[in-house]
Amino acid sequence: MDHRARCDRLRETVRAAGLDAALVTRLVNVRYLTGFTGSNGALLVGAEDGADVLCTDGRYRTQAGQQAPGLPLLVERAAAAALAARAGKEGLRRVGYESHDVTVDLHATLAEQAEGAELASLGQAVEAMRAIKDEDEIALLRQACAIADQALAELLAAGGVRAGRTEREVARDLDGRMLDGGANEPSFETIVAAGPDSAIPHHRPADRVLASGDLVKLDFGATYRGYHSDMTRTLVLGPPADWQREVYELVATAQRAGREALAAGVGVVAVDRAARAVIEAAGRGGEFSHGLGHGVGLEVHEAPAVGPYATGTLADRMAVTVEPGVYLEGRGGVRIEDTLVVRPGGPELLTATTKDLIVV
Amino acid sequence: MDHRARCDRLRETVRAAGLDAALVTRLVNVRYLTGFTGSNGALLVGAEDGADVLCTDGRYRTQAGQQAPGLPLLVERAAAAALAARAGKEGLRRVGYESHDVTVDLHATLAEQAEGAELASLGQAVEAMRAIKDEDEIALLRQACAIADQALAELLAAGGVRAGRTEREVARDLDGRMLDGGANEPSFETIVAAGPDSAIPHHRPADRVLASGDLVKLDFGATYRGYHSDMTRTLVLGPPADWQREVYELVATAQRAGREALAAGVGVVAVDRAARAVIEAAGRGGEFSHGLGHGVGLEVHEAPAVGPYATGTLADRMAVTVEPGVYLEGRGGVRIEDTLVVRPGGPELLTATTKDLIVV
Repeated sequence: MDHRARCDRLRETVRAAGLDAALVTRLVNVRYLTGFTGSNGALLVGAEDGADVLCTDGRYRTQAGQQAPGLPLLVERAAAAALAARAGKEGLRRVGYESHDVTVDLHATLAEQAEGAELASLGQAVEAMRAIKDEDEIALLRQACAIADQALAELLAAGGVRAGRTEREVARDLDGRMLDGGANEPSFETIVAAGPDSAIPHHRPADRVLASGDLVKLDFGATYRGYHSDMTRTLVLGPPADWQREVYELVATAQRAGREALAAGVGVVAVDRAARAVIEAAGRGGEFSHGLGHGVGLEVHEAPAVGPYATGTLADRMAVTVEPGVYLEGRGGVRIEDTLVVRPGGPELLTATTKDLIVV
Repeated sequence: MDHRARCDRLRETVRAAGLDAALVTRLVNVRYLTGFTGSNGALLVGAEDGADVLCTDGRYRTQAGQQAPGLPLLVERAAAAALAARAGKEGLRRVGYESHDVTVDLHATLAEQAEGAELASLGQAVEAMRAIKDEDEIALLRQACAIADQALAELLAAGGVRAGRTEREVARDLDGRMLDGGANEPSFETIVAAGPDSAIPHHRPADRVLASGDLVKLDFGATYRGYHSDMTRTLVLGPPADWQREVYELVATAQRAGREALAAGVGVVAVDRAARAVIEAAGRGGEFSHGLGHGVGLEVHEAPAVGPYATGTLADRMAVTVEPGVYLEGRGGVRIEDTLVVRPGGPELLTATTKDLIVV
């Protein structure tokens, strides 16, 4: 990871905005720009080269030195306030800050500490940078997705999805296989939703026992060195009923349309539309109650959002999910989700598990 | 849980502050006041009885109805903004908001939506309420602590802490036993730190292999129905060296002094001092580099903080940790931590595992 180059790119934004520095407080953004992974820290990126400073508290002194070598380090518990004070003392006049992250209380502290310096919103400049991945990041996403694929393959080969197990048991089995496969942790609380639970888009696995005839929705991912994978497959326990097969085929067709719409220059609304139109044409638009997808990277949900009310346009090397679903309340639901990277020749599919209906 | 009574108590604060309503945006505070556990929501608590409204998006309509029955529900994706707009339309003049939670951007949105209404900081009023537990909450904390105690007992009985295993393997084993015991999830990423790693206060378990002669620090907890336990025990693999026994006894003595200082009316600084003085008297003050403890409840770290720079005074039914440590860089460290409840006759100890040095 070339963190220095990332700081330099932010520096260009800082200059273009007429700022003297940017104070980065969102920890995931600090990590992106420096490699530092501690739970307390902030970063000042100067308009002038060589003025960058990382700040964290004493617990992370050694770690910060290892993860962000060559970056000057300030050790203070109130990291953002300490950097604001430093900016003020150095006579900076306009300091950008992350107004989507800084609370009203913290803003008051920063303004007081910065003395003469004016605080101006930096907007989501770092998130915008993060939306377009570099190849190092894509390699980590690829690995995270491969771990999840492998874990699901092992789970299925071991007969881990079967009638008589609870949703929670299946989830723990899958999580264990991801950890065995090298995941640092699951990307989020793994969803295992059986039968009527599969109609709940974000069901938390509980004590429901999987039964023959159930649709079983598995939405899960692996985190690998900070990067998240995200995928959903919906299986059926035993021979599928006609309605299950019909809904599955509909969602699979919509998902394919969504994937095929992924290209640089295409608006995110148009991508959503490509998939949603398929479901609406089947008269099931009301049963697809969420957006089509989202960016994925250091956060499992990040820019760009892909949905009917989202804004923006895809670019090469954006990593996004495509995850339409149809949910029939009380009966069951189907969602199929991949993680993909926008590429010039068509999207690169990172989640390789089959999208044919799996019958177990 | 009597959520209605909690809203009524906040209502008293609202009235006393001359506010017409409080807009609660911190999700954990919304949960505390209503029982609603969704990942998006906000709550308006009116100065007048009967004016309270919960807002969440369509995904959580059913869940909100089940978890917060009898509370009027507004279904909007931008929950806080929708409630601010409602307050404005109802002609409220002064609306309290959580200035430690609301970002600068969200504040601008709320101010716009609330039209005529003035936004005034509510401070951490809900956190202050949460610091003093009711007996229903203490019962859940007791259960969370019992699950963690039981998991550690099983781990030790099974020989799970042994030379040749990695830190990560031990952590997964312990986590699995907590889940088997009824935990909804670990309270935080379980710390297993062996040998020199035990000198790092917040080490993340990795591939280090436990070796004979190591101190092994286990810092972990179980979450049970939203409530967290938090405990640390430090074991030794094989016969302890003199220095290990000496440091252990020192920390155990300090920890006892900290526990014995817990009583209503005692300042949190005095509690920290009671334990810290023991370590300082042994010439090891510089090796105890963090505060003595923290409140625990719906969050694993919450009010009150117990440390040299904290402020405030203990009250009955506060739940806090007492966790002094001594860390010898490159050699090893010891931390001993309990979760306790402040009670009139002396603190109630929730984490029951022995604090005698465990040799495995």
